[in-house]
Amino acid sequence: MREAYRDELDAVSERLVAMAHATGDAMAQASEALLATDIALAEKVISADRTVDDLRDDLDDRVVDLLARQQPVATELRIVVTALRMADDIERMGDLALHIAKLTRLRYPQPVVPDSMRLEFATMGTIARRLSSRLATIIADHDPDGARELDRDDDEMDTLHRRHFAVLAAASWPHGVESAIDLTLASRYYERYADHAVKAARRVYYLVTGSRPSPSGSLR
Amino acid sequence: MREAYRDELDAVSERLVAMAHATGDAMAQASEALLATDIALAEKVISADRTVDDLRDDLDDRVVDLLARQQPVATELRIVVTALRMADDIERMGDLALHIAKLTRLRYPQPVVPDSMRLEFATMGTIARRLSSRLATIIADHDPDGARELDRDDDEMDTLHRRHFAVLAAASWPHGVESAIDLTLASRYYERYADHAVKAARRVYYLVTGSRPSPSGSLR
Repeated sequence: MREAYRDELDAVSERLVAMAHATGDAMAQASEALLATDIALAEKVISADRTVDDLRDDLDDRVVDLLARQQPVATELRIVVTALRMADDIERMGDLALHIAKLTRLRYPQPVVPDSMRLEFATMGTIARRLSSRLATIIADHDPDGARELDRDDDEMDTLHRRHFAVLAAASWPHGVESAIDLTLASRYYERYADHAVKAARRVYYLVTGSRPSPSGSLR
Repeated sequence: MREAYRDELDAVSERLVAMAHATGDAMAQASEALLATDIALAEKVISADRTVDDLRDDLDDRVVDLLARQQPVATELRIVVTALRMADDIERMGDLALHIAKLTRLRYPQPVVPDSMRLEFATMGTIARRLSSRLATIIADHDPDGARELDRDDDEMDTLHRRHFAVLAAASWPHGVESAIDLTLASRYYERYADHAVKAARRVYYLVTGSRPSPSGSLR
């Protein structure tokens, strides 16, 4: 790969890393606000969503500059297209952090998470934070194998999400339907967050190689 | 805009239109399967999701070809980046149709939607279908003003979604927590579907002009 092109592509990657960190911070704060019923922190997350959007716009500008200046060949172009799709994945992660903050605000001053579910949601928050931080590292290190590391976290998140469903739908659920609905949505936001982190991480393979795995592969 | 470039861009737009039609068909079938508890139709939607993904891959290939052959200038590049973001919006709409089909399959042979909610969900399905078809027309006609037409449908979907929340969370809800959770998710899938249709339609402005509205504008 040409060096000038590689340098500009690295600048695009840096924006992806910045986006991953920003969404990770947003999710960490949204999780804290959810558990502490902290309206000020929830509002902070809601207004900070603009930061992720700005990073995304900046990334789009970089990509346009890169394409205009470097006139990349086909493989290089495929890499750029992949970077844009990763930016979408990460932007969606930011949206999910925003949804959790909005749920906290909607129910304030009532807590969304009852005491009996605190540990479960704290664990989801911890996994989400770890996923973002790993994703940032994988992109920064151009490490296509790192995506596998995220699979375990994603599996754990899926297991928690499924377990929540069972707890919330049980006849013994004592907190009413509204609470069950809120927690279902919150749980789903975490599960989707993990899903998009894994999707973005898997695209690092294309980002490095510019080639699309076969449809039968697990990287889609 | 150069004619050769315009022609290739039209070919990309055609893929967007095809994606909008494919997701619209998927959503229409998913809605029908949901209301009729039709497992065969639900399975059809689930396996057809690959069609939208294939259209998306084809669109990416077209974009790479276009960029390689035409070496577009900055404004043209911005348009191409926008087309890719629209493809993401539409792909997400396809995912939401898929989620509805999966919910039908999960509860089969039990119906997801109780009789008392059939009309509401049938209406959501009708609005979703109309949104996809309008979106396809707006993209095909390069009609940046058409996005406004979608706003009314989106508002109607939001209103239905909020009303569902109230019905499901009411003490008088007779179908249990599990049903309330399923319907909350289904309702949310429709609401998100409308949201992404509007997002994609608004991007037609950039697709035509290549310029980003100011951050204070409503087109973000």
